[in-house]
Amino acid sequence: MALIVQKYGGTSVANPERIRNLANRVARYKALGHQIVVVVSAMSGETNRLLALAKELMPEPDPRELDVMVATGEQVTVSLTAMALMELGLKAKSYTGAQVRILTDNAFTKARILSIDEHNIRADLDAGYVVVVAGFQGVDEQGNITTLGRGGSDTTGVALAAALKADECQIYTDVDGVYTTDPRVVPEARRLKSITFEEMLEMASLGSKVLQIRSVEFAGKYKVKLRVLSSFEEDGEGTLITFEENERDGTMEQPIISGIAFNRDEAKVTILGVPDRPGIAHQILGPIADANIDVDMIIQNVSADGTTDFTFTVNKGDMNKALGILKDKVQAVIGAREINGNDKIAKVSVVGVGMRSHVGIASQMFRTLAEEGINIGMISTSEIKISVVIDEKYLELAVRVLHKAFDLENA
Amino acid sequence: MALIVQKYGGTSVANPERIRNLANRVARYKALGHQIVVVVSAMSGETNRLLALAKELMPEPDPRELDVMVATGEQVTVSLTAMALMELGLKAKSYTGAQVRILTDNAFTKARILSIDEHNIRADLDAGYVVVVAGFQGVDEQGNITTLGRGGSDTTGVALAAALKADECQIYTDVDGVYTTDPRVVPEARRLKSITFEEMLEMASLGSKVLQIRSVEFAGKYKVKLRVLSSFEEDGEGTLITFEENERDGTMEQPIISGIAFNRDEAKVTILGVPDRPGIAHQILGPIADANIDVDMIIQNVSADGTTDFTFTVNKGDMNKALGILKDKVQAVIGAREINGNDKIAKVSVVGVGMRSHVGIASQMFRTLAEEGINIGMISTSEIKISVVIDEKYLELAVRVLHKAFDLENA
Repeated sequence: MALIVQKYGGTSVANPERIRNLANRVARYKALGHQIVVVVSAMSGETNRLLALAKELMPEPDPRELDVMVATGEQVTVSLTAMALMELGLKAKSYTGAQVRILTDNAFTKARILSIDEHNIRADLDAGYVVVVAGFQGVDEQGNITTLGRGGSDTTGVALAAALKADECQIYTDVDGVYTTDPRVVPEARRLKSITFEEMLEMASLGSKVLQIRSVEFAGKYKVKLRVLSSFEEDGEGTLITFEENERDGTMEQPIISGIAFNRDEAKVTILGVPDRPGIAHQILGPIADANIDVDMIIQNVSADGTTDFTFTVNKGDMNKALGILKDKVQAVIGAREINGNDKIAKVSVVGVGMRSHVGIASQMFRTLAEEGINIGMISTSEIKISVVIDEKYLELAVRVLHKAFDLENA
Repeated sequence: MALIVQKYGGTSVANPERIRNLANRVARYKALGHQIVVVVSAMSGETNRLLALAKELMPEPDPRELDVMVATGEQVTVSLTAMALMELGLKAKSYTGAQVRILTDNAFTKARILSIDEHNIRADLDAGYVVVVAGFQGVDEQGNITTLGRGGSDTTGVALAAALKADECQIYTDVDGVYTTDPRVVPEARRLKSITFEEMLEMASLGSKVLQIRSVEFAGKYKVKLRVLSSFEEDGEGTLITFEENERDGTMEQPIISGIAFNRDEAKVTILGVPDRPGIAHQILGPIADANIDVDMIIQNVSADGTTDFTFTVNKGDMNKALGILKDKVQAVIGAREINGNDKIAKVSVVGVGMRSHVGIASQMFRTLAEEGINIGMISTSEIKISVVIDEKYLELAVRVLHKAFDLENA
């Protein structure tokens, strides 16, 4: 007997038919003797419907009141889910975030979980109930309703699994696991049976949007075993996200590379002819950060003639804003020669914990791209990934040839 | 400066435009220096939408889960209302029933209010906030969400007014007050400036569905001054429901009769040739009560030849069930001669506290009906009303002539 937390997203509860499917799956797990906590999101579309309603009355909705409103989305789903389970003859009970007492800070619309009182849920589980908890929401010290922001339901699932010391947290979604790369780009892409947390973080932050990065961090911190599964398949194994390299697939020999991630959403900004002196990086990036523009890769080459070139990437939507700030506030101050931007770029990354102990991954990656005539504009590395920025038009080609070069289509 | 509780029903918050109207009215009151608590229902139609969704998953929805779901209706409205008020530059804050801590028993879908913690609301009012509270809902001792059943939002308004010792509880609805009778029957019907609680109870229970009788009882018990107003008129005075006769209209001379109420929803059941002995009434009505059939009027004539006739009224929908019970379980036991029913009847009542001190009201009523050739089938009286049962087809005529006979069209 295991204690399993199952989290279902908005598409998995989009209508009564799908909620019934969900209930049937829960009943199958329950019949095996497991204790089940179900975490559900709002029905897909509901949050946007409510948001539109709010904006009709207050174009910039008050965050506290917005959370009061948006939290009703999951409140409806938990009651429907509990009823669907009861209709199958199971004992079931719903909880809102406040009823569990998922205590958060009071940062409305993007609150952080501080603690979870798992006492009542555990008592219900021991009494044979399936417990259904509203994802995405909590309550602050003053009793105000809060929501957790993007990916909040995943976070609720992981946090509940941590509080209950669950054996596994299953994230049901519309894909059946984590792939070596996007199957729409590489049809031979293969579902990974397992992946480490570190790799998942790299894959997630690089654009493989299976799980919100925040919930992966949370799971890693509290050592919650995560599994990504499809809610539309009955018997899928999904992808297990593990803590340790040697847990993967239960075998000793591991592939060096787990996957190829990519991201088309970035643009690069380059400042040419920057005097090479201390404090320059801060003078450039300070005003960017002040404008709440997120910066991803940052590259500064070693100095040649006393000046250097400085490049960083931002979201495409922020490029013009960043260029404006640099031209208005920075260029004259630091005496840079030229500032330009390019939003026709893409980032491709090779990810794998195995590269820690294997040399030559970078050179193999660069050689593979060179053989196809793909020029590398920027390079950035970490312990377990190598990212390059290339011309956007070569993205699919690059992903395909790298997937093949690292033999990812074969298990 | 007064503390005013304003309750708005589902049609008053049916869409963003109407919520804006509501907010504008609140702002006008606030500008006069009043403290305002707004109680709102769910947007009209929303509760039925949710109920239909629940029934798709559980044809007989679990009451606890149904309350979790249905309570979201008002939760959406309080946040929208608070946002509309903020958009006008007012300070506003929403509360769910659980957040106020409107403590109820745990009779899901028809809970009763046990107590209200007015502490936080009072603090917010003193800090200049308009407080917006979800009607119709509360929370039980265990933290379960409950709803109050039919007319529950009126009850919330009155209960909050009582707890806060408000100067007035204003019930905004789609009519502009309480009328001397239904204006659809008598075009000359006149809005009453005031009416006593006792009269309102008689008017409400007799079918003038302006206010739920439960909230009127509640207001009477806690001496809450109630005012019924239209949410679609800007400057209406509505009808004030007062505790004392001499508060009415502020004048000494009061009209004797306040209004003509009527009800088409009843049927009468007659048991002929009942032996006139102790315990007969219980033998007849006991099985009816056991079957959860509500009985309204009960008439037993004095005995003539050792037998008597016994008549009572029930809702039309219950008549056949009542007849079946009497024929199966009662007739043979008590030795009654015949049992019959008639659902082509209507009840007409003359209501007014003034009749306490005025004789001749009954005879004037009977004479007026007789002059039109309307036969009276049953008569029942209380301190402040006289009700008669007549043939259904004469109902409109009876109401018109009585309205005129008691001079109700003139203030």
